[in-house]
Amino acid sequence: MDTRSRDETFLLRALELAQRGPAVDANPRVGCVVVAGDSVVGEGWHDGAGTAHAEVMALGAAGDRARGATAYATLEPCAHVSRTGPCAEALVEAGVRRVVYAQSDPNPAARGGAAVLRDADVEVSGGLLAAEAAALNAHWTFAVEHERPYVTWKFAATLDGRSAAADGSSRWITGAQARADVHRLRAGAGALVVGTGTVLADDPALTVRTPDAPRRPPTRVVVGEREIPATAMVLDDAAPTVQLHSHDPHLVLKQLHAQEIRHVWLEGGPTLAAAFLRAGLVDEVVAYLAPALLGDGPTAVAGLGIGSIDGIRRFQLTEVTRLGDDLRLLLHPTTKEA
Amino acid sequence: MDTRSRDETFLLRALELAQRGPAVDANPRVGCVVVAGDSVVGEGWHDGAGTAHAEVMALGAAGDRARGATAYATLEPCAHVSRTGPCAEALVEAGVRRVVYAQSDPNPAARGGAAVLRDADVEVSGGLLAAEAAALNAHWTFAVEHERPYVTWKFAATLDGRSAAADGSSRWITGAQARADVHRLRAGAGALVVGTGTVLADDPALTVRTPDAPRRPPTRVVVGEREIPATAMVLDDAAPTVQLHSHDPHLVLKQLHAQEIRHVWLEGGPTLAAAFLRAGLVDEVVAYLAPALLGDGPTAVAGLGIGSIDGIRRFQLTEVTRLGDDLRLLLHPTTKEA
Repeated sequence: MDTRSRDETFLLRALELAQRGPAVDANPRVGCVVVAGDSVVGEGWHDGAGTAHAEVMALGAAGDRARGATAYATLEPCAHVSRTGPCAEALVEAGVRRVVYAQSDPNPAARGGAAVLRDADVEVSGGLLAAEAAALNAHWTFAVEHERPYVTWKFAATLDGRSAAADGSSRWITGAQARADVHRLRAGAGALVVGTGTVLADDPALTVRTPDAPRRPPTRVVVGEREIPATAMVLDDAAPTVQLHSHDPHLVLKQLHAQEIRHVWLEGGPTLAAAFLRAGLVDEVVAYLAPALLGDGPTAVAGLGIGSIDGIRRFQLTEVTRLGDDLRLLLHPTTKEA
Repeated sequence: MDTRSRDETFLLRALELAQRGPAVDANPRVGCVVVAGDSVVGEGWHDGAGTAHAEVMALGAAGDRARGATAYATLEPCAHVSRTGPCAEALVEAGVRRVVYAQSDPNPAARGGAAVLRDADVEVSGGLLAAEAAALNAHWTFAVEHERPYVTWKFAATLDGRSAAADGSSRWITGAQARADVHRLRAGAGALVVGTGTVLADDPALTVRTPDAPRRPPTRVVVGEREIPATAMVLDDAAPTVQLHSHDPHLVLKQLHAQEIRHVWLEGGPTLAAAFLRAGLVDEVVAYLAPALLGDGPTAVAGLGIGSIDGIRRFQLTEVTRLGDDLRLLLHPTTKEA
């Protein structure tokens, strides 16, 4: 087996290990395998913020066998001290001779691990299976690169674009299968964001009701200046809730980024959705369309400041899925937003 | 070969012949084969209103060989005298011994051909490949059964249901492929219907611009009381145009039925579409959805008289097709409309 095939084999094992970590977390999922000769002598993965890094866990398992060994990691070993010590130094201290990693660390505060290793005469190579490793932590990668969470705007509407009837009633526009899908996708987010208007109109619980509940429920975030009643369901103890009084989407995302939230699931209403769209802060749209008409009632989004057809906001239609009687469309902006 | 296989073989040939007739016509497409022994001795098809019926054409080709022969027809031979004499009598006079037809005549004015034949001691059987034969003339069959044309409502909109921007501009919401598809489907209609509001706002030509132009262009129908300027494109000489001053969809369809129009392609605007929907006179919806948002502007349909979510108008989503960047949805009412 040549070196590349060998490296790929052990990196694939590290990717498998990485998946044991939590899908939603402040930190990326990372896996690590320590190999001496042809034998795996240590395996590790990161189990979420506050727990040991994958390299530290793998080195711990390997013990003295790490000396002269090769370490495979899905992410460039970190060079910074945060909740745990820097992994690059731990690898050097353990006497590892060679380090192979997939994704380079996109985090400006953490990167530099490869340089630390080279300075200590450790042989280093990166980039193999980098795309696979980045895909494992797509939202985290986006967030550290853009210094804000990745934003998915979700809406449900009829074919004439109504998200509620004339009297504001909206339960339910879509069917059971589409609604279950929303809960499944909510589970992948760090925060669920709505405006005060939505809380006042619909009193949503904003919880994740799925057979496979996430390790920790997404933070519920209510944006806007209006007071919400103490009896609102978002204020129950099913999940943490944050109320942000600013209307500015940039500030909202800055505050959520500071709370290490990597993926925001924006559920509206129409005014809040418009504010995020106008600010160029929607990275993905998940639209649930019911094959139905209402003819009146609030639309999914209102007031984009578009006067004429030339200003139309186009998206790329990435995926179309039938869910029971309904359709789910996945869309992405056609051009990089400001 | 047993009788059934033999009958099916010659009826399939008759169905092939029927397709030589015009797809859009006041009359159904009909094919006929006259068989003596094992030999086809005459073939015929109906080439549209005002031309010979299929049976007459086939009998003419067969001449004396029709005596004692079997005639295969896709539709029950007519018993009425309209532009041509009744086919049932022509078959009797030609000495045909047996008649096999697929679809029973749904037209109350024309049916009874089978009875006429039986009274003259001709052996008659009907029903084989009836569904295939009816499918060939779906709109005609619907129209004679319901005494009104089949109505397809077409709209194009963004994902937030807008058919135009805030200033009324709407060229173009969908892409070239979707627009070409509209022309292809228009070609299958007997009439293209819009409201005066659409003529005044958009000045559409309402013509069929396809590589395969239909034998005759659909009649352009403008509905409403407002005056339209003499320079309006619908008034050019590219196709016949009718202006109906009534707003009542029932009356509009009655008048078009009297003009032997079997399929109406309704293009809006929002008020006219709402009137047809409220009257339960939309049999099919073709929705072109662009993966885009406008946030303001007129919606595809307005004012269905629905106050609350309980009144939502649901459809069955029959087909989803990607056309370039856009989606085409084909929908049918979930319950029989009044």
